[in-house]
Amino acid sequence: MTQELGVTVDKHKDVHEWYSEVVRKAELADYSPVKGCMIIKPYGMRLWELIKEKLDGKFKATGAQNAYFPLFIPSDLLEKESEIVEGFDLEVAWLEEDGEKDQDQRLAIRPTSESIITDYMSDEIRSHRQLPMQLNQWANVVRWEVSDTRPFLRTREFLWQEGHTAHATDESAEKEVMMRLDQYREMIEEEFAIPSITGYKPEHDKFPGAKYTSTIETLMPDGRSIQSGTSHHLGQHFAEAFDVTFEDENGDTQTAHTTSWGFSTRVIGAIVLAHGDDDGLVMPPNIAPIQAVVVPIYQEDNQEEVEEYAEKVAEDLEEKGLRVEYDDREHRTPGYKFNEWELKGVPLRIEVGPNEMEDQAVTTVRRDSGDKQMGLDREQFIDEVEQRLDEIQKSMYSELEDYQQENIREATSKQEILGTIGKSRGYVKTKWCGKEGCETEIKDQVAAEIVVLPFEEDSEPEQIQGDEDHLEGECAVCGDSAKRWAYFAKNY
Amino acid sequence: MTQELGVTVDKHKDVHEWYSEVVRKAELADYSPVKGCMIIKPYGMRLWELIKEKLDGKFKATGAQNAYFPLFIPSDLLEKESEIVEGFDLEVAWLEEDGEKDQDQRLAIRPTSESIITDYMSDEIRSHRQLPMQLNQWANVVRWEVSDTRPFLRTREFLWQEGHTAHATDESAEKEVMMRLDQYREMIEEEFAIPSITGYKPEHDKFPGAKYTSTIETLMPDGRSIQSGTSHHLGQHFAEAFDVTFEDENGDTQTAHTTSWGFSTRVIGAIVLAHGDDDGLVMPPNIAPIQAVVVPIYQEDNQEEVEEYAEKVAEDLEEKGLRVEYDDREHRTPGYKFNEWELKGVPLRIEVGPNEMEDQAVTTVRRDSGDKQMGLDREQFIDEVEQRLDEIQKSMYSELEDYQQENIREATSKQEILGTIGKSRGYVKTKWCGKEGCETEIKDQVAAEIVVLPFEEDSEPEQIQGDEDHLEGECAVCGDSAKRWAYFAKNY
Repeated sequence: MTQELGVTVDKHKDVHEWYSEVVRKAELADYSPVKGCMIIKPYGMRLWELIKEKLDGKFKATGAQNAYFPLFIPSDLLEKESEIVEGFDLEVAWLEEDGEKDQDQRLAIRPTSESIITDYMSDEIRSHRQLPMQLNQWANVVRWEVSDTRPFLRTREFLWQEGHTAHATDESAEKEVMMRLDQYREMIEEEFAIPSITGYKPEHDKFPGAKYTSTIETLMPDGRSIQSGTSHHLGQHFAEAFDVTFEDENGDTQTAHTTSWGFSTRVIGAIVLAHGDDDGLVMPPNIAPIQAVVVPIYQEDNQEEVEEYAEKVAEDLEEKGLRVEYDDREHRTPGYKFNEWELKGVPLRIEVGPNEMEDQAVTTVRRDSGDKQMGLDREQFIDEVEQRLDEIQKSMYSELEDYQQENIREATSKQEILGTIGKSRGYVKTKWCGKEGCETEIKDQVAAEIVVLPFEEDSEPEQIQGDEDHLEGECAVCGDSAKRWAYFAKNY
Repeated sequence: MTQELGVTVDKHKDVHEWYSEVVRKAELADYSPVKGCMIIKPYGMRLWELIKEKLDGKFKATGAQNAYFPLFIPSDLLEKESEIVEGFDLEVAWLEEDGEKDQDQRLAIRPTSESIITDYMSDEIRSHRQLPMQLNQWANVVRWEVSDTRPFLRTREFLWQEGHTAHATDESAEKEVMMRLDQYREMIEEEFAIPSITGYKPEHDKFPGAKYTSTIETLMPDGRSIQSGTSHHLGQHFAEAFDVTFEDENGDTQTAHTTSWGFSTRVIGAIVLAHGDDDGLVMPPNIAPIQAVVVPIYQEDNQEEVEEYAEKVAEDLEEKGLRVEYDDREHRTPGYKFNEWELKGVPLRIEVGPNEMEDQAVTTVRRDSGDKQMGLDREQFIDEVEQRLDEIQKSMYSELEDYQQENIREATSKQEILGTIGKSRGYVKTKWCGKEGCETEIKDQVAAEIVVLPFEEDSEPEQIQGDEDHLEGECAVCGDSAKRWAYFAKNY
């Protein structure tokens, strides 16, 4: 493998170095001259476009409409909901104050848009007939992260969608929050082939001002968890601060219930980390920018025929609706091409040489398993190609599902939690009393925290806020009576 | 018509007031708490999404790939190409300088991305094999306009696409510039049903640093011209400043030739102005967010059957691939609905009552002409609906084409130019020597300027830069020998 294409770091030895190298060499993204901001290159952008297209389709099919709100948020709006400011203050970037800029007040670059959108809803909503109002925007946001930034995983500017909705009842808002979280789960599990754990964030770690925050967590190969999407029930807190009221069926004035939910380019980092190997990316077929690549292999005396045959194979695959690349570059050897498409994680490589041409066949190589099948009947292969991609998708999911299952370990005492986190990767499942102090005791010693309170089939969301115990037994840390299961993990 | 939906201003009496009212009442956009920035509402956003989808398809079919570059541009990059800074300085918004922000230099909010993208190309491009490199990004940009802002037409933040390409030869860059301008022309003429004039900007009005700027201009009903898209040949000016070089086929180092081209949410303003009337918007069918609306008209005793029949009509139209709205709101009268869909400019209204149901028919009303056809056979109507929409599209174009033709008037002296602009709307076509002073003499007196030097079939683009005369005759202003035809107009 040439130096240019070779991944020089073993994934299991130094996953961070490996990540940086793969993201750049596979041409997903690059560093930019602006500290903490990345350049999303065409291959990475195509991936984001495919994610966007699928997620946007789900949103539109379930009542959401896209809109666009200003990049700038006046300070009085941010300050109106004082908990937001407290929660975000350190990360907010501001526009230069300048006489010429003729604004009455400071302008923040949006770190998130609850304030300006709730303000809009207050102007817009009059009647219960307008509810639910389900808005979404695809936009860039800026959070001036001071800790280590890394392409996709943590950048000062990132791309995302932020949904903002208003409802007549708490139940309707609750339903929205869970529906969006479930759409994120569908994306992550079905499209990205990554298993996940859904649940709540602890009270002290919820979105500032929210009633509760639900999250979808995915386990990375280094044993850390990535928060891959969040969906917040904002209760009436924001609606009260911004005066979002409506006339109900009886002509009475009511206050709305609002939600917000977001999914960002960060998930691209999760796809890279979850599936990649020492040769580079491994893309799940459902979301791969290129699902199959056709590489012709010829000698000087049969170049023309082989190329003609190979191109026809590529065309047939394209007609089946696949995203196909036909690689006819003359200045690259087949070996170089193989390495390059492996680096870029294309799920299926199709090799076509004189033998294949003669037999009306193709040879295929799977990126995930390396399995090579020679001399497959061409017609039959093309008929069955979607099924093959589906097999790859499923097998990539299964592998990670096993990995996740193996890396959830129960612990019943503080020492056991610390010991398990210290020597194993993944989640430590434990009973928890709900007090922040018990989390802090762990966090201070091993830099792991409660990343999720997993949904239990028999408990209702609002129970997270309640005072009763919903669980038999005692908190593993303090011994007080337990409230919920909690998953401790190191996170991104 | 209810107060809520009624447009209270006559378009021909006060086009600016009319515009503001229609944009808000038709729910395309609204003012925001940030001075000079708008909120794009779902109906306006859907329109922009349709525009984006069609234009993006054209770009991708002709080699462009999407990417995403940072919102922030470090001052040293902006200053590297000193002509850009001069050209944009007043309009640039800067991030607050702050020790905590840990940047070495000031950061601008991108007013356009030539500098950061050319800098990237300099890192990226090594070989002639990578050329042409055709990048595009869909993004928000900020220009701190000091003059009157107006939704879509002039806002401090707007959405656009900006294409940036690098080429091995001047010819290749030239071809790119003209191809993109032609794609803009296709959008404007074929999708928006607005005739246009393409040509160059005068030398003193080109993009800072460009070899030349080409523009597409559209004539509005108040006689003003809107610059609806621009495509710039940047020559080697940017490539030299940022050191974009490549190794050619012979192993020699060459400097690249670059271009840039942009199309923004401003065009939505042109669609509103060009087609709207005293009842609100008139949307060209090809780009209309809703192409047809089905309104059921019933009494209490036949509501169920009529609704069932009407819904089936809507479903059939949807199956034909149309963007259809079925308006079954119970709390609105048919008359209210008619007004609302007229306000929103839906090209075709389909009325369905008990008579239509009995006859298996529909009644249609065209938004553009008001033509009503009663008792059309339902099956036949559905079969022919695309053709009907196409007729509307064509007829909307023809009407404006006549208007544009009638409003290009030739003038052969300064007095005649001033007189024609003073008493007529539209373009004044005149021979021009190429000197800025001759434009200034007109501009100072009537606030009209040279908006375009129209392409002539027999002249080559580079002739704009040349010293020779390409035209028989004399400059209408100074009497020196003329170089080109120029169109004077007031503009947006």
